[in-house]
Formats: sequence, C-alpha cells, structure tokens
Amino acid sequence: MVWVQRELQLHPFSRGFHLITSTVWEAIPEAIEMEVGLLHLFIQHTSASLTINENADPDVRVDLEETMNHLVPQELPYVHSMEGPDDMPAHVKASLMGSSLSVPITHGRLALGMWQGIYLCEHRDHAGPRSLVLTIFGVDPNTM
Amino acid sequence: MVWVQRELQLHPFSRGFHLITSTVWEAIPEAIEMEVGLLHLFIQHTSASLTINENADPDVRVDLEETMNHLVPQELPYVHSMEGPDDMPAHVKASLMGSSLSVPITHGRLALGMWQGIYLCEHRDHAGPRSLVLTIFGVDPNTM
Amino acid sequence: MVWVQRELQLHPFSRGFHLITSTVWEAIPEAIEMEVGLLHLFIQHTSASLTINENADPDVRVDLEETMNHLVPQELPYVHSMEGPDDMPAHVKASLMGSSLSVPITHGRLALGMWQGIYLCEHRDHAGPRSLVLTIFGVDPNTM
Repeated sequence: MVWVQRELQLHPFSRGFHLITSTVWEAIPEAIEMEVGLLHLFIQHTSASLTINENADPDVRVDLEETMNHLVPQELPYVHSMEGPDDMPAHVKASLMGSSLSVPITHGRLALGMWQGIYLCEHRDHAGPRSLVLTIFGVDPNTM
Repeated sequence: MVWVQRELQLHPFSRGFHLITSTVWEAIPEAIEMEVGLLHLFIQHTSASLTINENADPDVRVDLEETMNHLVPQELPYVHSMEGPDDMPAHVKASLMGSSLSVPITHGRLALGMWQGIYLCEHRDHAGPRSLVLTIFGVDPNTM
Repeated sequence: MVWVQRELQLHPFSRGFHLITSTVWEAIPEAIEMEVGLLHLFIQHTSASLTINENADPDVRVDLEETMNHLVPQELPYVHSMEGPDDMPAHVKASLMGSSLSVPITHGRLALGMWQGIYLCEHRDHAGPRSLVLTIFGVDPNTM
C-alpha cells in the first residue's frame, strides 16, 4: 500500500475553466509505480472548484463559463455582496462543480477517457493563487 | 487490504436517467468479502455522468431529465455546437452531476440508503456504449 | 493502514444549509492518529446532500438556499409531486450538490482551507433525522 500526499500551489488564473491535467500529473511522479489506485484532488477554497470535462476544443471552456454564468447570474439579490458581484455566485458555482475529484490510477496512468481533462474552475474575477491537496493511494506491482 | 479494479462496459442508453445499481454490483463480486471499504465509480466520458437518487418511482427519472433540460437549455448561444444542439448542454450537465461517485461498503454490502440507487445519466440523444472504471478497496474480516 | 467506519445520525434540520464540520470531526476521534489519509462522508438520503462552502458569514447560507431555489424552482410541472412541492426539487438539488464528500487528512487534521466548512444541505421543508456514513482510512506515523 502506497500513500503520497502533497500540496500543489497553482498560479493565479483568470476567471473561467482551465486545464490542469499535466500540472497535476507532474506533481505526483510516484503514481507511475502504482498498479492500481486512486488520485484524489481537493481544492482548499470556496470560490474556485474542480471538474472533469472535454479536453480538446477550447470553445467548450468558453461555453462552460457562459453557461455557469447563465445558471448562477450575478444579478440575483444576494445578501452576501460585500466582496463584489462575482463573490456569491462564485460560492454557488463552487458547490455545483465540487471541491474534490477522484480519478482511478491503472498501470501507472490516470484512467481518464480519451477526451477527459481535469479542470480548475476559477469563479472569481481577480483571484490569487489556489492550493490543491493531491493524494494518491494504491498498490504497486510488488505488493499485489 | 483488498484492491479490485475493472472496467464495466454499459450498453447504449437512451437520453435520460437510468438505474445501474445491480449491474454495478454484479460486476464486483469481491465486495461481498469486504468488511469495510469503498466502491469508487468513474465514467470515462464527458457527455454522460453518474449520480445517486431515488430508486423507486420512475417519475423521478422523468423529472430529473426535464429539470436538467430546464437548467441547461439547448437554446443558449453555444459556440461549441458542431456535434448538435444536445452536445454542449451534455458537457455542462456532466460537470453538474459529476464523473465519479463513491459509496461505502459495510459487511459485504453497499451502504446505500433504502431509497438510493446509482444512476447513469445519459445526456446525449444518440449515445454509444459508456465505459466505467469500478474500484473497490478496503479490508476483509481476516485482516482487520 | 487504518480503517474506521461508522454511522452518524444527525438531528432534524430546517430547510437550508447547516455547518456540521465539528459534529463530523467529533464523531471520528481516530483521525487524530492519522498521518495521511482521507475522510469520506456519505449521506443515505435523496432529498438532502453534502457540500463544502464558506464557513464564516451566515449570509452565505441564506444565499446558497435562495440561489438553489432560483435554480430549481418549485413551480416547474413535476410529475413526481405526491409528497409535496418541495419533494422533487429536493431530489434535483441532492444530485446537483452530491451525496458524498471527501476531505484529505494530514497530520491528524482535516486539510480544509481556512474558510471551508462541511455542510448538510437539507432540501425538504419538514425533514426527519439524516444518517451519514463516515469512513476514514489512511496510515499512522508508525506504519509509514
């Protein structure tokens, strides 16, 4: 049984959906030794989130952002509004997308589908760096 | 510590919400030996998703589909539209529902509530087969 | 490798978003001994859910509830309506928020960000007690 856990600091992103698959993968080189396991990602913030979606067409990222803005409009009469009109919608979007993700690891690789990528969803207009906690756990070929 | 991971290929489903609890359960017979553990399900696609919801009244499945169509209408001005009007809404719904699920295993059974079932959410009009990665991990009575 | 799994019964909550971080934490004292691990929470119901969001300003909880009501209005023409106008929207909200959560455990503490708290989202007007299954698994300093 192998356990590795570490923090990954992401540089500030603009509001929107950003592919981070390779950044995440490079941060956990120990996964290559894993025969069967899971990668768990957790974001330590409440106005940004994590999701898995289409990794190819950049238009998908534009539409994801626009559709989430349609779903959770800035114009609702929010009570929590001191930090600006993008703040409370960001909290709602964070709960809709989710603060954690998990992906199987198989034969030393993420078992993502061909079109899947891991996204950092930045819901604020002017966000700072975001920190993730990455955890991989599973078994290597020698211990199976 | 027991780890089992395998792919489960699901036949094509019509657009909508479909109960797959027993199909999933039958694919992981090793779970019966598990005293305490978790089942992790992962769908390798970005226009179908997984959720847990009410397993009894078929009307719930109709309403889930209709409400998701209300939330993410096909009529928004999507940029990514080459694959048809159901495609981009499918991507958004997939992120809202999520691409993975996890359910506790207790004394060799899924610890689902009485009314809970596992759903495959098919968001496309004419989808092909969908592949899931099932992972169970935990301890059997002998190793606790 | 340490595994602990137990049920946590929550008293009935009013409709809305309720912080349960400390209730959950007190139910799993074994986590203090864990060097690296994960906490998995699972709710055994389909009209209440779990999420992580802002733990400080009570206004956020009001806005979360109001925004979810905006997203999933009670006035849609639901087929499944025998249990009252709050029932079917509750099922949809439960799938949007999710029935499970997982949080890293690091050096005997939940690796939540400073502003993060764990929420029970009660989507029904007159709900009974809700039961969660808590699972912690990981390694203690002696077995790393």
